[in-house]
Amino acid sequence: MRTSIATVCLSGTLDQKLAAASEAGFDGVEIFEPDLIASPESPEAIRARADELGLSLDLYQPFRDFEGVGPDLLEHNLRRAGAKFSLMNRLGIETMLLCSNVGTARSGDEQLAATQLRELGELAERFGVRVAYEALAWGRFVDDYEQAARIVRLADHPRIGVCLDSFHILSRGHDPQAIETIPADKIFFVQLADAPILSMDVLSWSRHHRLFPGEGGFDLAAFMGHLVRTGYDGPISLEIFNDTFRQSDAASTAVDARRSLRLLEDETRAWLGRSSRGRTEQMTARPLPVVEPPADINYVELRTDAIDEMRTLLAQLGFAAHGRHRTKSVELWSQGAARMVLGRPETQPPPPTVAGIGLSVSNPDAALRRATDLFAPEIHRPEGPGDESLVGVRAPDGSEVFFGLEGSTEPKWVREFPVPDQPGAELVERVDHINLAQPWQHFDAGVLFFHSVLDLRSQPSMEVAAPVGLVRSQVLRAADGVVRIALNLVPSGAHDDAILPQHIAFASTDVLALARQARERGFHPLDIPANYYDDIEARYDIEASLLAELKELNVMYDRDEAGEFLHFYTQAIGTVFLEVVERRDGYEGYGALNAPVRLAAQYQQRRDAEGVPA
Amino acid sequence: MRTSIATVCLSGTLDQKLAAASEAGFDGVEIFEPDLIASPESPEAIRARADELGLSLDLYQPFRDFEGVGPDLLEHNLRRAGAKFSLMNRLGIETMLLCSNVGTARSGDEQLAATQLRELGELAERFGVRVAYEALAWGRFVDDYEQAARIVRLADHPRIGVCLDSFHILSRGHDPQAIETIPADKIFFVQLADAPILSMDVLSWSRHHRLFPGEGGFDLAAFMGHLVRTGYDGPISLEIFNDTFRQSDAASTAVDARRSLRLLEDETRAWLGRSSRGRTEQMTARPLPVVEPPADINYVELRTDAIDEMRTLLAQLGFAAHGRHRTKSVELWSQGAARMVLGRPETQPPPPTVAGIGLSVSNPDAALRRATDLFAPEIHRPEGPGDESLVGVRAPDGSEVFFGLEGSTEPKWVREFPVPDQPGAELVERVDHINLAQPWQHFDAGVLFFHSVLDLRSQPSMEVAAPVGLVRSQVLRAADGVVRIALNLVPSGAHDDAILPQHIAFASTDVLALARQARERGFHPLDIPANYYDDIEARYDIEASLLAELKELNVMYDRDEAGEFLHFYTQAIGTVFLEVVERRDGYEGYGALNAPVRLAAQYQQRRDAEGVPA
Repeated sequence: MRTSIATVCLSGTLDQKLAAASEAGFDGVEIFEPDLIASPESPEAIRARADELGLSLDLYQPFRDFEGVGPDLLEHNLRRAGAKFSLMNRLGIETMLLCSNVGTARSGDEQLAATQLRELGELAERFGVRVAYEALAWGRFVDDYEQAARIVRLADHPRIGVCLDSFHILSRGHDPQAIETIPADKIFFVQLADAPILSMDVLSWSRHHRLFPGEGGFDLAAFMGHLVRTGYDGPISLEIFNDTFRQSDAASTAVDARRSLRLLEDETRAWLGRSSRGRTEQMTARPLPVVEPPADINYVELRTDAIDEMRTLLAQLGFAAHGRHRTKSVELWSQGAARMVLGRPETQPPPPTVAGIGLSVSNPDAALRRATDLFAPEIHRPEGPGDESLVGVRAPDGSEVFFGLEGSTEPKWVREFPVPDQPGAELVERVDHINLAQPWQHFDAGVLFFHSVLDLRSQPSMEVAAPVGLVRSQVLRAADGVVRIALNLVPSGAHDDAILPQHIAFASTDVLALARQARERGFHPLDIPANYYDDIEARYDIEASLLAELKELNVMYDRDEAGEFLHFYTQAIGTVFLEVVERRDGYEGYGALNAPVRLAAQYQQRRDAEGVPA
Repeated sequence: MRTSIATVCLSGTLDQKLAAASEAGFDGVEIFEPDLIASPESPEAIRARADELGLSLDLYQPFRDFEGVGPDLLEHNLRRAGAKFSLMNRLGIETMLLCSNVGTARSGDEQLAATQLRELGELAERFGVRVAYEALAWGRFVDDYEQAARIVRLADHPRIGVCLDSFHILSRGHDPQAIETIPADKIFFVQLADAPILSMDVLSWSRHHRLFPGEGGFDLAAFMGHLVRTGYDGPISLEIFNDTFRQSDAASTAVDARRSLRLLEDETRAWLGRSSRGRTEQMTARPLPVVEPPADINYVELRTDAIDEMRTLLAQLGFAAHGRHRTKSVELWSQGAARMVLGRPETQPPPPTVAGIGLSVSNPDAALRRATDLFAPEIHRPEGPGDESLVGVRAPDGSEVFFGLEGSTEPKWVREFPVPDQPGAELVERVDHINLAQPWQHFDAGVLFFHSVLDLRSQPSMEVAAPVGLVRSQVLRAADGVVRIALNLVPSGAHDDAILPQHIAFASTDVLALARQARERGFHPLDIPANYYDDIEARYDIEASLLAELKELNVMYDRDEAGEFLHFYTQAIGTVFLEVVERRDGYEGYGALNAPVRLAAQYQQRRDAEGVPA
């Protein structure tokens, strides 16, 4: 599969865009006309630069408002097209995208459009170029790819074909199956975009909210499957208009983009494999190693300068102190299967506080190969003699993900730390979930990373009101629910204190007993307002004695159709805090209704700490 | 008119919200339940605090999913309601908002809903409170205010009335005229929200995009007019869910909010005055002084440390140097009626580079009174003996707006500066427009400020692609088109260099002659790429000699139905640059198609200046 990306997907100058696309391993790019017009480089220089970067220039786009017009305008339009064909010759681009007319068309007569396209084909012939006609979802008369294909058939010119764009087809709910009825040699170009399922006018949706494949809600594997069956062997190109990507670093966006196509190629192969008429010769990359979702989180590594406070907190929660690693300046704390590696930040810039996650997988080497095939940068932990070898990769937010072998009750590397003098309290069983605050420009890339690399599945995202803005939260989890990672999109915010902390939630068998024991060890939880308990009393038929205990211990409460959820929070230490949760009778949520109360309490805590009247 | 605001409109803690509402002069607030639940203060303490701040607590909201349910759930719902009524007693709140059921209703039978509301009324009676029933635009069975009013009439209980919310009514396109058929004593509460006219699902529109009155596209004066005719005399309350306001400073948002209601009261009075059945006794504030839109921009004040570069630039463009003010450390440059006051930043934090705008108005005192009635803070310029008194106010972005008397060819204060040694080139006539980059959290407030204070009208807003993201641009202009102010919403951006400069555009009678003369004086304009000229050649039938001249002088070109537009840009000096424009034959735009090219050239210029390879 030849991969391509439209320059409009990336921020910066045309030259920066080309460099980012090449660096991420794309085979080619679409030149988005405004990027060319704004470039100080001549078409010849751009062509040479692309050549030097190993990029083909696959498409010149867009040309607009050509067909269905009166004779005067047709003449003007042909003159316009001739100028652009000449420019394409200078750039060495063979194919031009023609969007269906949205403004100047006076007639929806398909024969008229076809006749005019045929004239355009004659002109294209003289320049040795060709035209890919695309039905925009909001075209004035032509807004459906089958209609565009019909007009191309009527035009019957070797220089006139169609461009298929997944957004324009799937946003309108059109069935992509009819793609199979289009002859492969009439499909001149294919553009791919995903998008969240939104209910809004299709033009705004298209211009602002497109996403890379796998980041939204379209079934692009099926779209691609129908396409592959036609025998199409041209570029598969990303054309994503997205307000956030426009503001983000081009190099990271390009890697995210390339990863999305790699995953899609794999998913398309699987779709074809499931279908009766598989045809996978277009799938040129080797299949991604198949991995099971991770079985559990075998450690979390925190890097913080407030190491003493964190030690105190873990001890209060009943964790056992293993002490310092035999060669490295990190220490281990454990309780049940929850293991916390603690150290100070040692790199510049400092890593996120949740600096690393260790996952138990059935085949660490396969997990690593899958991740690197998906363009995740491989990392190595420094090893002392006899240390266990761990393989891992870096996530888009800069944190590390390591893969260890599942199955044993304790990972081998634990023996690199001393045995604790005293055992842990054993009221914590394991890590329940990890909550990572993502920089706003990496949120969608983070979701795609954890989904594609670890085969975790996205749950419906939700929004939670904090005193400094809305926080978008997206949980990714394994089908068995053991590994759960929540990504939070933090408002970029006017408030200086808008940075919301990350957190680790531990699963407990008895959160009330744990809270009580912790209190005896001097623990002071995050204070929950009395008004909150009045509200849950009004909301639920909750036993008076339980309510009193919750209130006494600052434990929060939620309920779903299956069961109950009891949880409490520690105060924040720097940009991290801890939570202990108890899921009763198969409760599956995260206490989302309680999150605004927690966020307000944390805001209050920060302001109190800073001595600002809140 | 009693004014109120829902706490959900403002950021921060409940206490911060109350303080901001009080400081901005609101009479009362609606307590949004999640704000109360998250507050560490007891209901009694909150009541006392509101009292101390002079705020009434007008509404407790929202109560959800009550009516249309089966008998078991009804019992549970009555229990829930009782708990909240008891809480309202502690808060001293008389009215509760009940939203029409979106989740648990099993039946749309209006008689059933009415019977259940009647039961709720009986319960409310016991607590001495009352319930305002609101049809949510996405209610399961009840989604229209006339339906809600019918159910309330059927319930026939003195403790049950309606709440009218402009968003729920106008977003669905319902005619507000039928409000007049509801008896005033059955209208228990009124919530106001404006919104941009968007085509999206009404729930997302409501939750994220509401605006204060006058900032969106709804006809709220008509809504209010129908309401006033009923004789309703309760609070008019703002309930705005807006992602940006949630992140913005509560104090500024509250002022913006209060201004919106003040303007609306005036517009409602005007609407009633135009209608056959005016009834304005509810309009308790005195009418705003009527002002004509400003006749012209009589000066622009720039505060910059790069004062030498700015002097050179103005001289190159043909401005005459008047020299230093007789007592202050500012200097004046002029050409035609364009006057630039130049000085260094003298305050901390420094003012915006475009630090002040002088406007000629028919009645400066009336203009000032209107502005201060609209809660704009009055400012005074330091006056030396014999200096002209200028009156002015501060805009939301921190810049100053001064009002001078229109009519004379030259403002009197010009005589406070020396007469220039040499006259100006007289190819510049006046300031054509001013383009102010707004901090993202002040954009809507900026639009409302210039619209309400100066009676400028908003043009349709547009979006322009810059290398660092999309820039939203909103022009406000006087009907005669002389005074034009464009506000730009700059992407908050990942890029360090995302701060886009402000600019002043001068109107010229002959931009080509001016560009040529400037070049002879050593001027180097912003470089426009050759690719741009190839494109306008393809786009327009443009004379070859004109095209060559445009290209030679880096002058850009646009055309609309009326005429042509020629314009060029200076290089940026710090965060400001200048433009010279020539409007031929009544061209009315701003060369929006050229803006992305200009933005890319500026981005390139900054990177070149910083020595970063672009």
